[in-house]
Amino acid sequence: MAFTLLINPGSSSKKYSLVSAGRVISSDRFERVGATFEVCTEQDGQQQKCEGVSGEDFSTSLRQVLDRYLRTNVIENLQDITTVGVRLVAPGTYFQSHRVIDDVFIHKLREREPAAPLHIPHTLSEIEVVRAELPHATFVAVSDSAFHASMPTQARDYSIESSDTESFDIHRFGYHGLSVASVVRRFRELRGELPARVIVCHIGSGVSMTAVKNGVSIDTTMGFGPDSGLVMGTRAGDLDAGALLELMRVKNIRSFDTLSYIQTRGGLRGLSGEADFRFILERAATEDEKAVAALTHFTHNFHKELGALQMVLGGVDAIILTATAAERSASLRQILFASLAWFGINFDSVKNESLLSQDSMITTNDSPIAVMVIRTREIEEMYRVTTSFVA
Amino acid sequence: MAFTLLINPGSSSKKYSLVSAGRVISSDRFERVGATFEVCTEQDGQQQKCEGVSGEDFSTSLRQVLDRYLRTNVIENLQDITTVGVRLVAPGTYFQSHRVIDDVFIHKLREREPAAPLHIPHTLSEIEVVRAELPHATFVAVSDSAFHASMPTQARDYSIESSDTESFDIHRFGYHGLSVASVVRRFRELRGELPARVIVCHIGSGVSMTAVKNGVSIDTTMGFGPDSGLVMGTRAGDLDAGALLELMRVKNIRSFDTLSYIQTRGGLRGLSGEADFRFILERAATEDEKAVAALTHFTHNFHKELGALQMVLGGVDAIILTATAAERSASLRQILFASLAWFGINFDSVKNESLLSQDSMITTNDSPIAVMVIRTREIEEMYRVTTSFVA
Repeated sequence: MAFTLLINPGSSSKKYSLVSAGRVISSDRFERVGATFEVCTEQDGQQQKCEGVSGEDFSTSLRQVLDRYLRTNVIENLQDITTVGVRLVAPGTYFQSHRVIDDVFIHKLREREPAAPLHIPHTLSEIEVVRAELPHATFVAVSDSAFHASMPTQARDYSIESSDTESFDIHRFGYHGLSVASVVRRFRELRGELPARVIVCHIGSGVSMTAVKNGVSIDTTMGFGPDSGLVMGTRAGDLDAGALLELMRVKNIRSFDTLSYIQTRGGLRGLSGEADFRFILERAATEDEKAVAALTHFTHNFHKELGALQMVLGGVDAIILTATAAERSASLRQILFASLAWFGINFDSVKNESLLSQDSMITTNDSPIAVMVIRTREIEEMYRVTTSFVA
Repeated sequence: MAFTLLINPGSSSKKYSLVSAGRVISSDRFERVGATFEVCTEQDGQQQKCEGVSGEDFSTSLRQVLDRYLRTNVIENLQDITTVGVRLVAPGTYFQSHRVIDDVFIHKLREREPAAPLHIPHTLSEIEVVRAELPHATFVAVSDSAFHASMPTQARDYSIESSDTESFDIHRFGYHGLSVASVVRRFRELRGELPARVIVCHIGSGVSMTAVKNGVSIDTTMGFGPDSGLVMGTRAGDLDAGALLELMRVKNIRSFDTLSYIQTRGGLRGLSGEADFRFILERAATEDEKAVAALTHFTHNFHKELGALQMVLGGVDAIILTATAAERSASLRQILFASLAWFGINFDSVKNESLLSQDSMITTNDSPIAVMVIRTREIEEMYRVTTSFVA
């Protein structure tokens, strides 16, 4: 039997999903938790098991996973894994297409490394390891920006010198494309057709919003890197040039540390000390001032982007909410949408509290704008893309 | 007779207005035009006269102006000038109030100089010169950010570590406050009262948009410095951190040159090679591709901010347009507003073409959102602020 291995590499988390004939057989998520590490495994539909692992295990995570596949007879030998898809988060026009990973690809990714020093090195080292372990397989880079390649120039470009835009390939590439593509596809499956003007809100540890017109992305909140746009768990979102340069000056930090700061010390964590919506909502419920302020800040920016993308679309027919926080927290959805009747959102508290299924509406049937929660299906989307290269 | 001298200092232009009993007696505008300099003078209601001047004259502009006042008997001696107002564009909570300029003020402004190296040095040197020339006068710093001091935390703060926000005084201060205050005041004079939800769009060489709720600013597009937010003549407007750091890396520039780049080489100039709306509109009329693209880019961002501020206000009752480009160009107003009927703006082309007076409506009488052009009255606003300190 032929298997596809899907990998989502990162500095503080790495995910592996083994898929066969469209079915996820096994998934493993390695995660740095403060100074320690853990792995959570879900195999063959059984309940997820988590256990602490060493830093050594974290760095050899792929080897651990492959060993278990063999040991538990999920696969007979490594040749059974014929295709590997690696999620790619990298700024660049070249990286805005899904591509077979070959030496040219690796060379181009290495060239771009200084532009994304927090992401690309981990992707490169993961690719190196997996190519060594599975030399016979076909490798596909699954671009998290590909869905946004359709954005028109006015949304894709910054207003800097146009020669610099082109020479240095500095564009607004957008991210969360796999998630957005997956929920747009799912909406079509559920409803038959997609309305012309849709806004997709991805609210997980990363947060973004995308304007989808007639099925294609025409604008999104994330720009050159995945740290821009909306306020996120630990990422600062938009921070203007003057403020950024002042922060660098007073803290005496340069590029790498600055990127690290805006990716790990901003957002909800920067505002409240806490990056996770669950805990912020709990603290806010007991009227913890910092938590309330962080939620107010988040909502303020969220609403502004909703209004901005509405203009780009010329109005809104439907809003799709996806990713962990949006899928799991009724109170977050309430905070974000219950006060927007004037905007055309007739929020239905009962539906919101009791989500009838994993994909369901939270507005009244006669709401001018329909708001729907749809579970993100990034793995399915990665599988679809990866296998399309070997079909 | 007591005179008030109002000064707007800058690196490439300096403006002086002599006012008495609320009437502007004389105004002089020194400007760098490429590698040369010119001064345009308007005295006692006569037509404006412009002439080339030397770099030496530009740097001693105050002396030139005072000499002419004396020579033409506008004033009898320098003691007649009893108050001086200096327009202040400087990031800082302290600078978000209008203040008498004393040694404490100068000390604080000097301390903040590295945060705004393109603006503060010119302000400081102008203050030094004018204090030496008019030692008997009262000096007032007229803050261009004061109007935005009312912004709530969620609009005023970035989502960085809250301790850094406070320790280093890095906030979204906003600018164009004098212009916004002046047109809000004028709207009240014309109409008796101001609607609850107003958006003021200042479109000159700088461009900004402010949400005014019940008469006070609750959000604005400019942040730490006056280079952020919307696309402007030569300023880049919003540029996310990742893109900015990449630009610094590939061009190998640091703080000062980066600020200079985003203030002088971005915006319409960066996109099309041309910073002035007049020429861009002319070129666009002949279907020059770069000019059309620059206008499309500008409009895209302008509409997005309009939508964003609508959310902050919970809807919009009126939009006020002000500053040179908005006041003078019917075709720019048409580009920005004629296609927004779905948003509640019923544009009236006839009114737009023929502006009945310097302050007039460009929407139909039954338009859900009224759009009005009101001439900016920054000088009047500066006069009001300056004289309030000696009343």
